[in-house]
Amino acid sequence: MREREVLRLLAQRLEVGDDCAVIPFQGTNLLLTTDMVHRATDLPKGASAYTIGWRAAAVSFSDIAAMGGRPLGLVLALGAPQFERGFIEELLAGLEACCHLVGAELLGGDLDRHQELTLVSTALGLADRPILRSGAKAGELVCLTGPLGRTAVALKLFRSGQLERANELFRFTPRVQEGLRLAPFASAMMDISDGLARSLYQLAEASGVGFRIEYEEVPVLPEVEELAADERARKEMALFTGEDFELLFTLPEERLPAAREAAELFVIGQALPGKRLTLVEAGKEAELADLGYEH
Amino acid sequence: MREREVLRLLAQRLEVGDDCAVIPFQGTNLLLTTDMVHRATDLPKGASAYTIGWRAAAVSFSDIAAMGGRPLGLVLALGAPQFERGFIEELLAGLEACCHLVGAELLGGDLDRHQELTLVSTALGLADRPILRSGAKAGELVCLTGPLGRTAVALKLFRSGQLERANELFRFTPRVQEGLRLAPFASAMMDISDGLARSLYQLAEASGVGFRIEYEEVPVLPEVEELAADERARKEMALFTGEDFELLFTLPEERLPAAREAAELFVIGQALPGKRLTLVEAGKEAELADLGYEH
Repeated sequence: MREREVLRLLAQRLEVGDDCAVIPFQGTNLLLTTDMVHRATDLPKGASAYTIGWRAAAVSFSDIAAMGGRPLGLVLALGAPQFERGFIEELLAGLEACCHLVGAELLGGDLDRHQELTLVSTALGLADRPILRSGAKAGELVCLTGPLGRTAVALKLFRSGQLERANELFRFTPRVQEGLRLAPFASAMMDISDGLARSLYQLAEASGVGFRIEYEEVPVLPEVEELAADERARKEMALFTGEDFELLFTLPEERLPAAREAAELFVIGQALPGKRLTLVEAGKEAELADLGYEH
Repeated sequence: MREREVLRLLAQRLEVGDDCAVIPFQGTNLLLTTDMVHRATDLPKGASAYTIGWRAAAVSFSDIAAMGGRPLGLVLALGAPQFERGFIEELLAGLEACCHLVGAELLGGDLDRHQELTLVSTALGLADRPILRSGAKAGELVCLTGPLGRTAVALKLFRSGQLERANELFRFTPRVQEGLRLAPFASAMMDISDGLARSLYQLAEASGVGFRIEYEEVPVLPEVEELAADERARKEMALFTGEDFELLFTLPEERLPAAREAAELFVIGQALPGKRLTLVEAGKEAELADLGYEH
């Protein structure tokens, strides 16, 4: 059996199919989600300690946001090769700033010496009605909370040494406010941590629908236009690069005006009967490639 | 500033002073605790995948037990250098068996490729009245839920190649049942994951009391007597070796008969006014060394 298949098997047993585990509790639901961030895979050279701490918290809060949940608190397991005061204080400051931003508390953690800098954040949240990935219906609109390309641009800037802007982009704001405001309207929701295309396939599979996406309607950051060498690179950054953490959601067309009042949103396509996922570009419709970020 | 001091500073900000973070919620309390277990520090050569999975879950459930809590569920972040089917299936089987044992659910997790096998388990629990470390009062009895030396013996057996018994000892039972049964009587409680001596100092500091411990009353596993080369080695295994995960607690003397009905327990000493921690051995009382396991 190939490693890829083992991974899939494992994912089926460990992943809950949604961004958080949902634990019904006293008439509401607790949400629990855990995320590992470590040097080799997730942290480019040039990311500051503050940014690393921030991002470790933000990825977990994004999972709470993706279910329309309110974050209560966070615990952190931190393994580091050495405990140097400046680095650790900056890291904690970033972590705490992100907690503060979403109104959650840093509740505690565990420390360990580890050859590779490794942070595992676990967020606890609350949702009376968690928005699952499985609720999208044919005919509904497909929407995003913001422009894509943030992490793709940040990685490019890290590589070219433009560290200040790169760090700023890397410290994304988890869409907690947007998730809470959109929850009354959304039929299905997730964050697009694995890239838009991969996320659309996941949403489609969970809901049993297809999607038609209008490429021209997919919003991207201005830097994507600036930094993409050609159209192919632009598309890669917009559709297939992971870790953007905007929310992807569906809603019935008649709820659109009210949803627009609640939060900024971008309609990028429509849910359709069947299983096909297509991309409309310059008037031509073709299959959307199922490519994206794999952890 | 020395690394040791940075670690202490960090611990003050990340550690909650108790085995779990306590989140008051709808008239009860949620408990949340996270623990990192990884190859270099925590997993001896010869530990089976089943044992590794079990232990990753057990260390977090032990923290829930230490507050008299009931575990609800667990999430796991797993980083591994490769995903080989047999290994991963055994690991998950061990993890699930430990969850099953304490009546908790494996709720989900996160997968990542990591150079070093790294497991971070986070347990969620519940306690109407969490037992803190700060409640011990002078005059009360100091007790243990079981004999010590389990991990010390296991590590010795791993080194000498007696893997079956070593693995068995390493898969300790988190004292969830005992914690729940003793909670109505205990004034302070913790697990002794850092060794008995270190844990006594932590309990003493949190409660503002001293302790007098009777060395002859500290129960140890029969293997400690067999495997300890001399009296010094015996004492090392009983008092100063970490990761035993029995519960250490205090209770008023008049509650002892009722507590004994509730769970097996061993009285090992008494809480005293002041700050001194002493060990009585062969009729002589001397200061208890503040040595133990440091992560």
